[in-house]
Amino acid sequence: MNQVIETILDHRSIRKFKDIPLTEDQISTIIEASQQASTSSYMMAYSIIGVTEQHKKEALAEVSGQNYVKDNGHLLVFCADFHRVTIKASDEEYEDMLPNIENSEHFLVSAIDAALAAQNAALAAESMGLGICYIGSLRNNIEKVDQVLSLPKHVIPLFGLVIGTPDHRPDRKPRLPKEAVYFENEYKSYEEPLETFNSTIAAYYLNRGSNNRTDSWTDQMLRRFTHPMRMDVTEFVQRKGFNKR
Amino acid sequence: MNQVIETILDHRSIRKFKDIPLTEDQISTIIEASQQASTSSYMMAYSIIGVTEQHKKEALAEVSGQNYVKDNGHLLVFCADFHRVTIKASDEEYEDMLPNIENSEHFLVSAIDAALAAQNAALAAESMGLGICYIGSLRNNIEKVDQVLSLPKHVIPLFGLVIGTPDHRPDRKPRLPKEAVYFENEYKSYEEPLETFNSTIAAYYLNRGSNNRTDSWTDQMLRRFTHPMRMDVTEFVQRKGFNKR
Repeated sequence: MNQVIETILDHRSIRKFKDIPLTEDQISTIIEASQQASTSSYMMAYSIIGVTEQHKKEALAEVSGQNYVKDNGHLLVFCADFHRVTIKASDEEYEDMLPNIENSEHFLVSAIDAALAAQNAALAAESMGLGICYIGSLRNNIEKVDQVLSLPKHVIPLFGLVIGTPDHRPDRKPRLPKEAVYFENEYKSYEEPLETFNSTIAAYYLNRGSNNRTDSWTDQMLRRFTHPMRMDVTEFVQRKGFNKR
Repeated sequence: MNQVIETILDHRSIRKFKDIPLTEDQISTIIEASQQASTSSYMMAYSIIGVTEQHKKEALAEVSGQNYVKDNGHLLVFCADFHRVTIKASDEEYEDMLPNIENSEHFLVSAIDAALAAQNAALAAESMGLGICYIGSLRNNIEKVDQVLSLPKHVIPLFGLVIGTPDHRPDRKPRLPKEAVYFENEYKSYEEPLETFNSTIAAYYLNRGSNNRTDSWTDQMLRRFTHPMRMDVTEFVQRKGFNKR
């Protein structure tokens, strides 16, 4: 096993960091790593905002409900960005671009481009001994995040990535059995690997270092999905010129 | 610089492979790497279809318009998947889950989860000396891909990833200047770094090993965006129970 695969397999989300800011060199390396990710048709349809002002970090931590969004080595917010491709367009060209910019195909493109870049950032950071956690909970109030970062039309926040020197070492969280996720040639809908996983995860939740509880994965998903969440994201992204046709 | 960062920075898309299939061990390692990626609220909202049957690879190569979709060491198709979380739900629970499964928040979640997993797969493969290329062009006829892979409701194909032993070594493709992509604390809309990049990319296109041409990045984007593309993705994803509220 090489260092890349070791780093990938050793991933765990870090939610408590020492009070050590990332150096400029570390940040540069992480951003360069992000940028080298594959990108759909060379669109590079994302931007990254590094948040250093404490009042902004506090505002974002309040949206997220998580202290580690302000207490970390650095906070990146990955954004979908189709503003950049319009900068040099004439008014007429801009109008002609809107069917693409606003369709769900390009909403997908921007989310995928941003996530590929983010995962490079995450692994680059982890390879340097830093810890990371993705922050999807910025979408608890996506409009507020948008305002805090002064994002123009055709730019929206997707998720955060906190990075820093780990101050805990949580257990590695189990994943679904391979048979539940990977199929050859056609999709298969199996209940059995989910039952196997429910047993695995029940043992994990009972025995892990903190927050012990009795639970199964399918119950956890059922509870989560039966309460409508972030239903305002749709209206917000459309107002910003995404995913509206 | 460590091996992880070296691997990340050395990325180039490979579009010509030797006729050497991946071993079962290589595939297992790549899938395990995928699965260890971060996932939003433990949803693991994706599935991966490994395509080995030649007639299916040919059908997907036809959709994509690219020979390397059939001629490679292995082909993975990453799919958004909210079917899995419904398998153990009662009819009533399923109805209660739909507002989440069908909203654009969860469309984002599944695309991001799948892309994080895919980038782990890509880097694991590259670290083993294999080459990769993402295949967004499967969305040229997303409905056909859906049929070829027999995907149920709440599962849609997002993109492919071809993997194999490289049979060429293209130049590393330049990326936008950091100043065009990374901002501190608030978004900035700059024209200058785009002009810098236009010069860089003009030189790259003139001097690279093949397909030389005169072009700039902003012109290339303008041409691409002013022709509506894949406008059928919206209707398709909604019919499959995604992104409809």
